[in-house]
Amino acid sequence: MELCLADVLGDHALDGEITRPQNLMQAMRHGALDGGKRLRPFLLLESATLFNAESPAVIRIAAALECVHCYSLIHDDLPAMDNDDLRRGKPTVHKAFDEATAILAGDGLLTLAFDMIASPQTVLAEAVKTALISALARAAGPGGMAGGQSLDLAAETTPPDESGIVTLQAMKTGALIRFACEAGAIVAGATADERSRLAEFGAAIGLAFQLADDLLDLTADPALLGKATGKDLPAGKATLVRLHGADWAHRQLAGLVAQASELLEPFGDKAAILRQTARFIADREM
Amino acid sequence: MELCLADVLGDHALDGEITRPQNLMQAMRHGALDGGKRLRPFLLLESATLFNAESPAVIRIAAALECVHCYSLIHDDLPAMDNDDLRRGKPTVHKAFDEATAILAGDGLLTLAFDMIASPQTVLAEAVKTALISALARAAGPGGMAGGQSLDLAAETTPPDESGIVTLQAMKTGALIRFACEAGAIVAGATADERSRLAEFGAAIGLAFQLADDLLDLTADPALLGKATGKDLPAGKATLVRLHGADWAHRQLAGLVAQASELLEPFGDKAAILRQTARFIADREM
Repeated sequence: MELCLADVLGDHALDGEITRPQNLMQAMRHGALDGGKRLRPFLLLESATLFNAESPAVIRIAAALECVHCYSLIHDDLPAMDNDDLRRGKPTVHKAFDEATAILAGDGLLTLAFDMIASPQTVLAEAVKTALISALARAAGPGGMAGGQSLDLAAETTPPDESGIVTLQAMKTGALIRFACEAGAIVAGATADERSRLAEFGAAIGLAFQLADDLLDLTADPALLGKATGKDLPAGKATLVRLHGADWAHRQLAGLVAQASELLEPFGDKAAILRQTARFIADREM
Repeated sequence: MELCLADVLGDHALDGEITRPQNLMQAMRHGALDGGKRLRPFLLLESATLFNAESPAVIRIAAALECVHCYSLIHDDLPAMDNDDLRRGKPTVHKAFDEATAILAGDGLLTLAFDMIASPQTVLAEAVKTALISALARAAGPGGMAGGQSLDLAAETTPPDESGIVTLQAMKTGALIRFACEAGAIVAGATADERSRLAEFGAAIGLAFQLADDLLDLTADPALLGKATGKDLPAGKATLVRLHGADWAHRQLAGLVAQASELLEPFGDKAAILRQTARFIADREM
């Protein structure tokens, strides 16, 4: 995946492209390479493994998904949004370059992601590619991740109620994790039941991921995490952990891990790594 | 096209979307509906007509292309980029809403555009859809429009030479117009010669469009144009018109119109409207 990502973010222009400006490509690489947990591509590759559908094409889909995730981080970090200076232990793209370049680097990563799926280099049935593109766009767009960020910004002035927080988080973080888990089933042409189990698994671990994140935000060591922490506190940002407390959050996490594991039952031992991942997400300390 | 665009930008969530935040959708509609020349979708629909390939699906592709164009305007207008307050006679999105919402509205339009092509609602062969998505992404991405905007920003501090200006403009404005003209050939599965003629036609009128724009920027009435004019002057922005003068530009425009018309010869009378469009673009006063 890392090699594939580095390759598609190279300076070499593809057919139909004119030239790739060096400065912009450097900013895109700064935002996408050498860092991060790579959780989403990992989940995507593991979900494909359930169906013995691993292939170079699936690695390209995983790299495209990571591009979409990294674009969202670059834009979320902008001064007009969350105004973060540090990401993955490095200066954010607008700090290392400038705001305009960061906006364009995010735009570039998002655009490139769809080409990476559609491209003739991705050897999959064309109907599988369009299904992936549509599902990814819906997870990432105004009815998913981008909409979730919009709700998150609105939450700074009008704190949402509990169901508002759940919707916001399902969109902002959940939708892309859900897509990652569902994508293997799309690639493999799995049954509707299999696809929906994986989507629900993704939704459950997405929720767990967010709960763990909110817990961490109260307690973690900034040196370990590589980004500013406790920063949601002064703004009084509403989170479920803040609403119900850390004990409740730990119980919820245990329930979500059990639910996630149960959803994978029909896949037997093949799903062992995905089950472990659910536990890791709930217990993570960074 | 307008009805299709208004429909896809509605508040109603699609399958796989969670919910569409009202404020974000309003900003996306503000940036994409009720305005603009609609040149790109017009060219796309006309290029499809050459092959008798008009269909509701082609209208969706045209609307997707307009979403990509409008996303680029929203982001280009941002304070960190060209910092424009007025667009199409209305406040720009970041003025009517706020910067964060404008960034997300652009992101949302770009993402939605790819879903509009890939979606099962677009009744075209899946291989045609992936070819369109790949070509559009390459025209719009770091090797095309987004890269062109990046070069344009760099040009403010380091004025490019003549070939640098040509590349910049081919990327920033030309690439999407070229895609618009080529798209009809992709939809129709035309021959390589037909596709390349349309692509070259698009490149020629893209260049004409930019020359006319640079001429207008020196002379036009701001009330007629609906955006600030002469604004490239104080910054000393390099344009071919500035380099070679207005007379040269008028001769170039005449040459480009002749070249564009010649490229369409094999299509006979069917291409009459595209030929007229080339003349209109060269002569336009707004």
